[in-house]
Amino acid sequence: MDTAPAPSRIRIVLSRTSHPGNIGAAARAMKTMGFTNLALVQPRHFPDPDATAMAAGATDVLTSAAAHDSLDGALADCTLAVGFSARGRDLSHAPEALRDAAPDIVAATAQGRVALVFGNETSGLSNEELLRCQRLVHIPANPAYSSLNLAAAVQVACYELATSAGAHALPVSGAGMPATGDDLSGLFEHLELAVGASGYLEPGKPGRFMERMRRLFARAGIEREEVKLLRGMLASFERRMKR
Amino acid sequence: MDTAPAPSRIRIVLSRTSHPGNIGAAARAMKTMGFTNLALVQPRHFPDPDATAMAAGATDVLTSAAAHDSLDGALADCTLAVGFSARGRDLSHAPEALRDAAPDIVAATAQGRVALVFGNETSGLSNEELLRCQRLVHIPANPAYSSLNLAAAVQVACYELATSAGAHALPVSGAGMPATGDDLSGLFEHLELAVGASGYLEPGKPGRFMERMRRLFARAGIEREEVKLLRGMLASFERRMKR
Repeated sequence: MDTAPAPSRIRIVLSRTSHPGNIGAAARAMKTMGFTNLALVQPRHFPDPDATAMAAGATDVLTSAAAHDSLDGALADCTLAVGFSARGRDLSHAPEALRDAAPDIVAATAQGRVALVFGNETSGLSNEELLRCQRLVHIPANPAYSSLNLAAAVQVACYELATSAGAHALPVSGAGMPATGDDLSGLFEHLELAVGASGYLEPGKPGRFMERMRRLFARAGIEREEVKLLRGMLASFERRMKR
Repeated sequence: MDTAPAPSRIRIVLSRTSHPGNIGAAARAMKTMGFTNLALVQPRHFPDPDATAMAAGATDVLTSAAAHDSLDGALADCTLAVGFSARGRDLSHAPEALRDAAPDIVAATAQGRVALVFGNETSGLSNEELLRCQRLVHIPANPAYSSLNLAAAVQVACYELATSAGAHALPVSGAGMPATGDDLSGLFEHLELAVGASGYLEPGKPGRFMERMRRLFARAGIEREEVKLLRGMLASFERRMKR
């Protein structure tokens, strides 16, 4: 993808996954964030109907997934491997928080393919697997219950990296045209006249009420269409008051 | 929780959820990020064995969940309701990206309880539900496949807010004591002597090799224990060379 280079240059590597449903759910999580490159190292069951069912609309990610006998095979063409771990480790790499590491990981995609490596659901990455990674990343979690599901961890990792890379724009909003200065002047003049005519404003001291209204509509980011609706309402009050 | 005030003041509201398994998976996702306040609006099936099974170690979140007949009931004591939507809307609130909105949402927890509102799995939040929310938040996603599972969306939202609030520390690392300046001086003197004795350094011009080694070990953030191991290795080479 030319418009989203970081996700297209990042491979998700799932090592020794026990439950094929988790592989499918991870594929779905990846695709929602624009990631499609999946490698599996010694999956216990794959392909498998549970993987396909959990992938929902992301079966293309499963179909194109590469299976490897060893982690080295999955990392052969990668210039950076990032291991994900929920635990502190008796190893010399200190874990970094995912958010802190994300900008460097995105930057590294300019130099080559990057792998994010996730271990077995129960035991995580082994020390041997971690030693093949240049960085160790942790998703900060509740110390009393840090058990993210495998697909949930993949979802968070892909979300963080896609967000850090600015990969996806916001959807087009249905919000209308913002009101112009003229629209607002017209509205506030009309409001002051109409409310004044109703007797609600203290004669000669309309200031405080109008000031509050200006602040309220400024905060609201009022639109042209809404100005029109409000002025229609004011005109309607005025007509009734004249009867 | 005194140490994590933001998660403890945020309620997750799931409205009109169809599949009880998704309620359980959402409870698990919440708890991993330190959130425990769950409200359900017209769940199709709840309590339900599928919810309990998917909650894994987070059944306490399900047990304490409040069920409501209407969204108004779930929001009654909240000072801010944030609606989550995957789609652009024909409404006047423009959607904000989750990351951009997170600091404001965390700040709002200082003033009262905040609700994050998630709609039905298939149809999302209805316009009526969205109109009860003061802000509309979007999780930026792949425009060709933006279908985050409900629990995945809850996981990402809770991760983003917990991270923005700095709620969870990194686990204690097993990393050892960093080397001191003296350790490093000793190592580099020893290295230069030993490598010089081996004939590998150009006599009188040891500079370039030593400079590269200094850069390498600086990048590695070398530890005392590793300095000891390397000096042991050098001493061993020296002994063999003297024979």
